[in-house]
Amino acid sequence: MSELTIWTLDWVPQGPRGFVRDLRLRWACEEAGLSYAVRTIPFDGRETNHLERQPFGQVPFLNDGELEIFESGAGLLHLARKSDKLMPPDPVGEAETLQWTIAALNSIEMVTVPWWFLKICGDEDNQLTGWMRQRLDHLERIFSEREWLAADRFTVADLLMADVLRVPDVRAFGDRPATEAYVTRSTDRPAFRKAQADQLRLFEAADEKRTESD
Amino acid sequence: MSELTIWTLDWVPQGPRGFVRDLRLRWACEEAGLSYAVRTIPFDGRETNHLERQPFGQVPFLNDGELEIFESGAGLLHLARKSDKLMPPDPVGEAETLQWTIAALNSIEMVTVPWWFLKICGDEDNQLTGWMRQRLDHLERIFSEREWLAADRFTVADLLMADVLRVPDVRAFGDRPATEAYVTRSTDRPAFRKAQADQLRLFEAADEKRTESD
Repeated sequence: MSELTIWTLDWVPQGPRGFVRDLRLRWACEEAGLSYAVRTIPFDGRETNHLERQPFGQVPFLNDGELEIFESGAGLLHLARKSDKLMPPDPVGEAETLQWTIAALNSIEMVTVPWWFLKICGDEDNQLTGWMRQRLDHLERIFSEREWLAADRFTVADLLMADVLRVPDVRAFGDRPATEAYVTRSTDRPAFRKAQADQLRLFEAADEKRTESD
Repeated sequence: MSELTIWTLDWVPQGPRGFVRDLRLRWACEEAGLSYAVRTIPFDGRETNHLERQPFGQVPFLNDGELEIFESGAGLLHLARKSDKLMPPDPVGEAETLQWTIAALNSIEMVTVPWWFLKICGDEDNQLTGWMRQRLDHLERIFSEREWLAADRFTVADLLMADVLRVPDVRAFGDRPATEAYVTRSTDRPAFRKAQADQLRLFEAADEKRTESD
């Protein structure tokens, strides 16, 4: 049995398929060539059925031997220490990777996720739009100057930033060709494609089981 | 000259004083007994005058010898590797500290900051209110069961979470006695008090210079 286990939901509706955050951890393991198992908790009752393992009722969380780690960003930084493919081992490369990983979580996703939430509530031209535009414009400037965020190579920071930016509503927000090219070259990577296909396959198989039990 | 340098603005208006995020890095250095210098960039022109050092035009950023690190969360995790006082060195303690540090950035602050932004835009009962209540209620359950988030002791995760939760509008959002006690015991720490007093003193001294030059 693999030492690494990624935990996700046993089924989700069509909407979030391909975007559930276990994909971040799958993608990282695929990039690094780390073997891993995937296990699930029930979708029904998810708000409260695993609070002792994830205090906000979310997925994913990660087992690594005796360790259990929630928050996809924490899981990524944990996995990054296992493989140079995710984070360069030199202090400068490591610091650059760390700062851009945190930027994806706290400077970009902190705007894109609430903006998207207001949008799907029906408020497309909401009060976070100006902030959203400003942050994405800064990123567009960065991506027009370099291929990857940190250390002149693909790192876990790119994996996370691309996952944040590939959300369809975020991707369609304005015309930013350098950012679009960045998202495309990130999600064209074989490791991403395998991770996404595996996630989709899990939920499709769960459809069949749900139908059978109806 | 100190190897560690924390960069912040040379002046800010009254509103954000005591809350500018250089305080997080000051607090961490004070907890760990790390010596550090503080240097400043001009408030006037801050949106563009340091983009090559902080790509979103924000503060703080941190110098550590040849390293330069932006994002306060990244600076905290970097500092945490220098001192057991910020993060236990054992794998379990380190993983717990990491996950709660990321939770503060990506599960709590990702809700509290946009909620607060909508509130100061005049929309107090905004569409993020339900999400905010849910996340803070989960935290209240946690704090009613334990004194600190990770490893049964104060860590950098508490430093960050307490800094996120001590924002007055967040603190006043509902009645959560365990959370309030947590914020109080965190901000009663001598290291926090010194960090905050030092930040306030910097900006007060800048007031005098601005008056002289008027």
